[in-house]
Amino acid sequence: MVDDRDLLKVVSGIIGEERTSDDCCMIKVGDDNIILSTDMLHESTDFPRGMTDWQIGWMSAAVTLSDVASCGAVPLALLLAAGLDEPERISGITAGAKDCCERFGAELAGGDIDFHSELTIVTTGIGRVEDEYYKTRRGAKPGDIVCVTGTPGCAGAALEGSERYWKNLVEPLPAVREGRLLAVAGVSSMMDVSDGIALSLYDLSGSSCVGFEISMDNLPLSPGVSPEMALYSGGDFGLLFTCGRDILPVTGVDCTVIGVVTDSGEVLCDGVLVERRGYSHRWMEEI
Amino acid sequence: MVDDRDLLKVVSGIIGEERTSDDCCMIKVGDDNIILSTDMLHESTDFPRGMTDWQIGWMSAAVTLSDVASCGAVPLALLLAAGLDEPERISGITAGAKDCCERFGAELAGGDIDFHSELTIVTTGIGRVEDEYYKTRRGAKPGDIVCVTGTPGCAGAALEGSERYWKNLVEPLPAVREGRLLAVAGVSSMMDVSDGIALSLYDLSGSSCVGFEISMDNLPLSPGVSPEMALYSGGDFGLLFTCGRDILPVTGVDCTVIGVVTDSGEVLCDGVLVERRGYSHRWMEEI
Repeated sequence: MVDDRDLLKVVSGIIGEERTSDDCCMIKVGDDNIILSTDMLHESTDFPRGMTDWQIGWMSAAVTLSDVASCGAVPLALLLAAGLDEPERISGITAGAKDCCERFGAELAGGDIDFHSELTIVTTGIGRVEDEYYKTRRGAKPGDIVCVTGTPGCAGAALEGSERYWKNLVEPLPAVREGRLLAVAGVSSMMDVSDGIALSLYDLSGSSCVGFEISMDNLPLSPGVSPEMALYSGGDFGLLFTCGRDILPVTGVDCTVIGVVTDSGEVLCDGVLVERRGYSHRWMEEI
Repeated sequence: MVDDRDLLKVVSGIIGEERTSDDCCMIKVGDDNIILSTDMLHESTDFPRGMTDWQIGWMSAAVTLSDVASCGAVPLALLLAAGLDEPERISGITAGAKDCCERFGAELAGGDIDFHSELTIVTTGIGRVEDEYYKTRRGAKPGDIVCVTGTPGCAGAALEGSERYWKNLVEPLPAVREGRLLAVAGVSSMMDVSDGIALSLYDLSGSSCVGFEISMDNLPLSPGVSPEMALYSGGDFGLLFTCGRDILPVTGVDCTVIGVVTDSGEVLCDGVLVERRGYSHRWMEEI
């Protein structure tokens, strides 16, 4: 069985590791650093049953704005390509994406429309970031602390039936303001936790060549959310970041220290190896 | 029955006509004009049977680079989101897209990988253009001439079985160099003919509030390609543009004058109304 992280290694071998180690890429245009990110979502795997078209549009915009924000960038615009199973869905989807963009300071600036047997949406975000505020997964250093914003696991709880967190799941709020504040404050690495904290720690670990030692007791939990859900479930859009101990608190950012960065290369929780699992696309065939 | 141009009107009502009247959008970033364009392609409707994965990757890049070029922009980078039916296809697709990008001066800078029952690829291109060279569908003026580059209809001929034009269909060459040269020379409007000359003339007509009078005899034809094919078939990536008569010839651009811009609002060929048909996605339901 292969998952999308295996496939990413194939792509990495063709276009270069630097271009595949983050959810965004940065290109220089004149004096500006342009941040780009693209995400493909499908009805059967990404949009829980019961979502409205407006929520589908909102979520599609949110996931990409979250990636842009996790680089420390200011989002500018979003494109939305929709493969529609039913043409009338375009109005709700467009309205939801536009509202999400406006809420977070970006413009829904265009897209593409197509027919598809299964609703498929690809959003591409563009943002801008200064050299000194550009954050990736690569800067974590042993001795740093590792933190999350918000209370992860709520979307996962909703997926398991908790109605109180339904909106967390279907109308996620990308941490655009927080990402920018943390970047300006000088965090050393950052990404969103959309695939869950566990997988995200492994991603940071691989990119920064470091390990982590976190504690279950430190995980910030909303009522009814288990530490397991916080660690292993996806669909939340908080930020995971590392920084020197002197940086916190950052005014305007609600975050929690969950552990420290180590030089071991291992991801441990209370001394035990964290399972490398979370939100991931999987294929049954061998590559 | 509705087609994608009907749906575009719905989107236009939500995000504004200016953002939907071209295949690209332009956003200002600092002192730069950034051009963005996104295209969704599916195996069943966009990739003729017999294409290799490398060709699928190439074509996916080419269609978007063509849109970027039709604005007069210099392409910079491309993102590719792939919904894969079989994971191993990613290597050929990525290699094809990378080769196309490199051929036309852009970088394949990232993307997303997902599972999909039907192979689905969304490419998003980014380019840069100066104010004075930024071209849209909106600048055609009565009295201008209307021209095409290359010899359209070859891809359409291949779709109807002509083997000699198979490569035109599956390894299209976006007119990146030509688009830039024409923009610098000062054409008044420009777009690519990927949906066919007829539909493209209607698009220019709607955006520029003008009409066209072209002549069948003027259509530049490759051997075995009928004027009908040149007018109504899609899949070619030449450019359709309007300009003052004094602009031609443009050094380095092989193009043909096919008619004139009128103030009638009608699209005529030899005095007869051109059918509004070409390459278009259609849905059977009513919107």
